Amino acid sequence: MERIEHRASFEGWQDVYQHESTVLGCTMKFGIYLPPQAEHQDCPVLYWLSGLTCTEQNFITKAAVQRYAARQGIIVVAPDTSPRGESVADDAAYDLGQGAGFYVNATELPWSNHYQMYSYVVDELPSLIEANFPASSRRSISGHSMGGHGALVIALRNPGRYASVSAFSPIVAPTQVPWGQKALAAYLGEKNHDRWKQYDTVELIGSAQERLPLLVDQGLSDEFLEQQLRPELLRAACEQAGHPLTLNLRPGHDHSYYFISTYLGEHMAHHAAALNR
Amino acid sequence: MERIEHRASFEGWQDVYQHESTVLGCTMKFGIYLPPQAEHQDCPVLYWLSGLTCTEQNFITKAAVQRYAARQGIIVVAPDTSPRGESVADDAAYDLGQGAGFYVNATELPWSNHYQMYSYVVDELPSLIEANFPASSRRSISGHSMGGHGALVIALRNPGRYASVSAFSPIVAPTQVPWGQKALAAYLGEKNHDRWKQYDTVELIGSAQERLPLLVDQGLSDEFLEQQLRPELLRAACEQAGHPLTLNLRPGHDHSYYFISTYLGEHMAHHAAALNR
Repeated sequence: MERIEHRASFEGWQDVYQHESTVLGCTMKFGIYLPPQAEHQDCPVLYWLSGLTCTEQNFITKAAVQRYAARQGIIVVAPDTSPRGESVADDAAYDLGQGAGFYVNATELPWSNHYQMYSYVVDELPSLIEANFPASSRRSISGHSMGGHGALVIALRNPGRYASVSAFSPIVAPTQVPWGQKALAAYLGEKNHDRWKQYDTVELIGSAQERLPLLVDQGLSDEFLEQQLRPELLRAACEQAGHPLTLNLRPGHDHSYYFISTYLGEHMAHHAAALNR
Repeated sequence: MERIEHRASFEGWQDVYQHESTVLGCTMKFGIYLPPQAEHQDCPVLYWLSGLTCTEQNFITKAAVQRYAARQGIIVVAPDTSPRGESVADDAAYDLGQGAGFYVNATELPWSNHYQMYSYVVDELPSLIEANFPASSRRSISGHSMGGHGALVIALRNPGRYASVSAFSPIVAPTQVPWGQKALAAYLGEKNHDRWKQYDTVELIGSAQERLPLLVDQGLSDEFLEQQLRPELLRAACEQAGHPLTLNLRPGHDHSYYFISTYLGEHMAHHAAALNR
């Protein structure tokens, strides 16, 4: 593991590391914000999953998370969104292949060789963080768009592993929308709908073994709202299952980091309350 | 004038406009944050001048200024750093030509045709803003690196025009350092040292007609500190002239937006106190 960026930020450090991922079979980068409290004690960790086309850079440069994390004593880890490299399968489209891992474990060639982002985020990355940084095993998870989907699915499938979960503009029903159908067909096989459902928040809600409250923010001027995001499906599924959901619909807001930065303070307060309990 | 970006941010709007600049003879873009207060009343304006290689995008996406501006009721205008376009003179180097206007009025060909950034920032842009937006004529100015130089020079040369001034990592003595010597020689003529001095903060301090306090933050791990920035020259000039200076030297901090975002809150408080007086 090698530190490739090291920048002072709000009395702590915004670093970027690269390491060889066993699960993904390639070199991966992640951003990690170490708050000032981490100099003296183990701190809880928020994992942030970014959306389509993003790398480890987008969230750490544009979301303004450091000020909150510094006050709350939270380590923030932002991994890349897919395996990377010349030997890793890719596609010319922005919504498949590198930059579009969808946080699944692919079963179909050529993707299955490297695209194991679910295991990377759930297991390998936290093990690495907790072994090498002043990180406790208190974890929360959040993300945006494809990463919001990843955060919700991962929290629902791993009861007890996360103290809290939230999402901005998540893809809540990938089995029902174009982005998700394209990616799940490629990574999991066109006909394997049972596998697809294991990565679909709306499908998973009914069988969730833990009633971890979901905090979701969605902009009402989001250009992907009606075709790709469809928060009404999440609301209906949560109502039917009796699963606690706070769904904030934000007039005027789009799909950008201007939206995320506006409401990130509320999400950080939500996670801090759970992590520092 | 055409609005080309419009994004909700902290109850206000982060917009980008483009317009035909008479002074520069080309199409220019600027970012403008309109706080929620601007829906009901005229608001004061902070002008932000960015550094080498930047466009109107860097500050609005990376500095996290919107949260402060929304609370304080300040419009924030971030222009591009030079004239732009295929018909505008340029240089392959990052520190001359497009992206490196240095906030001077060029006198030498080929630069003098378009490189009139001093007049653009001092006159044309504020006139445009105050005619077309809910902006009062209360103005402050700040910037980073080359833009910190621009902010300090412009405030010192225009007594009464700005309620406050600040800078991050400014080039305080361009006549004495490589970045400045290269740019001033090209734009103002190699031998015209009297012209150069009109764009040098350390030179201007002694004859300043207004004792506007300078707020300057400088990272001590800044890779350009010793060769290009040299804040000790500013401190000496202010001491000699009895000019009020707050110079905050920040251990560990570099030249990046992580530095700016960490201390921008203090600068915004400084400007808000002056603008809302």
